[in-house]
Amino acid sequence: MKNFSDQLHDYGFSTEVRVRLSETDAVGVVFFGTYAHYFDIGRMDYLAHLGLNKLDGAVRDLIPGLVVGQEAQFKSSARYNDVLTIFVRIATIGKTSYTFHVKVVNKRTRATVANGSLTLVWMDDKQRPIRVPEHVREVVREFEGDALHE
Amino acid sequence: MKNFSDQLHDYGFSTEVRVRLSETDAVGVVFFGTYAHYFDIGRMDYLAHLGLNKLDGAVRDLIPGLVVGQEAQFKSSARYNDVLTIFVRIATIGKTSYTFHVKVVNKRTRATVANGSLTLVWMDDKQRPIRVPEHVREVVREFEGDALHE
Amino acid sequence: MKNFSDQLHDYGFSTEVRVRLSETDAVGVVFFGTYAHYFDIGRMDYLAHLGLNKLDGAVRDLIPGLVVGQEAQFKSSARYNDVLTIFVRIATIGKTSYTFHVKVVNKRTRATVANGSLTLVWMDDKQRPIRVPEHVREVVREFEGDALHE
Amino acid sequence: MKNFSDQLHDYGFSTEVRVRLSETDAVGVVFFGTYAHYFDIGRMDYLAHLGLNKLDGAVRDLIPGLVVGQEAQFKSSARYNDVLTIFVRIATIGKTSYTFHVKVVNKRTRATVANGSLTLVWMDDKQRPIRVPEHVREVVREFEGDALHE
Repeated sequence: MKNFSDQLHDYGFSTEVRVRLSETDAVGVVFFGTYAHYFDIGRMDYLAHLGLNKLDGAVRDLIPGLVVGQEAQFKSSARYNDVLTIFVRIATIGKTSYTFHVKVVNKRTRATVANGSLTLVWMDDKQRPIRVPEHVREVVREFEGDALHE
Repeated sequence: MKNFSDQLHDYGFSTEVRVRLSETDAVGVVFFGTYAHYFDIGRMDYLAHLGLNKLDGAVRDLIPGLVVGQEAQFKSSARYNDVLTIFVRIATIGKTSYTFHVKVVNKRTRATVANGSLTLVWMDDKQRPIRVPEHVREVVREFEGDALHE
Repeated sequence: MKNFSDQLHDYGFSTEVRVRLSETDAVGVVFFGTYAHYFDIGRMDYLAHLGLNKLDGAVRDLIPGLVVGQEAQFKSSARYNDVLTIFVRIATIGKTSYTFHVKVVNKRTRATVANGSLTLVWMDDKQRPIRVPEHVREVVREFEGDALHE
Repeated sequence: MKNFSDQLHDYGFSTEVRVRLSETDAVGVVFFGTYAHYFDIGRMDYLAHLGLNKLDGAVRDLIPGLVVGQEAQFKSSARYNDVLTIFVRIATIGKTSYTFHVKVVNKRTRATVANGSLTLVWMDDKQRPIRVPEHVREVVREFEGDALHE
């Protein structure tokens, strides 16, 4: 499992969600499966922030790549109506894949709720892996700076 | 609101779900919004049972019409791991619309959990309402018999 | 089905959601069952706005009453990343029940996406219907004014 | 990331889900976040199969431990109405934690759809990690045999 030693200052982007009642379960806290949804919100908002999705395009065009891996480590519980800050960065761009790191923090208490990652593979129209395009690398390099591993 | 006096013998089709932990909320029972999902499972399984969806087609083709109305009345609570029987019928076919009645029953206790309806409008490729096709009416008439209102 | 002739000026409260990718379905638009979740967000935020939930209490205490009815009419489709404004009012307080009206509007286009209602029954600790407490009626009367039906 | 070289014959238990329309997204395939829900169904059904949850107890009692880690690798896409077999095993029991391996397979095509794991920590009433009880270890040992790592 990856070592999420990332500090908050490693993250140049964040977005927020507020926990919905339907996202909790009968145990009284946020269902762990909900975090995959939060991670995805973080990913999509990050890409929009960098201009890497096209909001007037078809949804199919909005999604650069296919999710091939996901992991999460849960550090503390979140409850109904908590505001969670989702910090997002692209930590690595390989040949055909790239990886987001995500850190979910309780906005009020500052407690880390979850750390995680999403790995995607860039695909052509026939769902074959292809090299992450150069213009995407440039935009991400510009935003992430030296913290980006290539 | 419609009068759901429908008795169980009015229903010629049923399918089942088992309540998932993620479908309950922090109050400890099934979140009311989950029932719209259960109704939809009932609808899709009913259509498949009558051969009115094409499992090898595109998803877009699977969906005869657009949901324009939904209602539900909640009679008792359901809990994690309960098996629910979803009874489904098409009660009415109008000119361009048709309406499902749905009754959700706790399989073990036989208690009615929810009654509801879904109304759809048949659409052409440009999302304009058109008459429900005759072959669909015939299949539904055959299945529902005299209970069908046209 | 109720007549949702309510105009926007009837609504004294609104909150917002932004459509998540996971809330759309394979047809490409927001899954109709998602609206029950949006309605619930509207309800809970409305109650919080009027001070009628206690954020430091147990979740069980946060929920004044049990949802016994829900209906929705869908007027136009919403898509990924659309910002939706959820207008909420309490339209009626009966002896033991009360009813929210909800109107979901596309923030950018101003198109009405859905109208709906949620009806709840006030319960005592043993889940028996009891009269909606007077202090709740007063707070809602104060906020809704003459538009409230009692 | 763990090496999921597990073969199917390593798994002594499986359960099934059928993909719901609401679990797909606008891209047309199962939303990756849905798999956390499928994993959880696998986990809960496995525990029930071994008699390690008590269906007549409070939900809080049903959940032996808190999920502290989750990971998934996605191998192929699943679509609406696909039947998925969820193979589940407990692969490791540590001092206070235990780990499920999960393999999701398309029932018809036999294609692997996803591999993953869930790690939980056993907690006392005050949410402090404690040793996994001996009777639980025994039941799991009995079922998993030599494949179990302790």
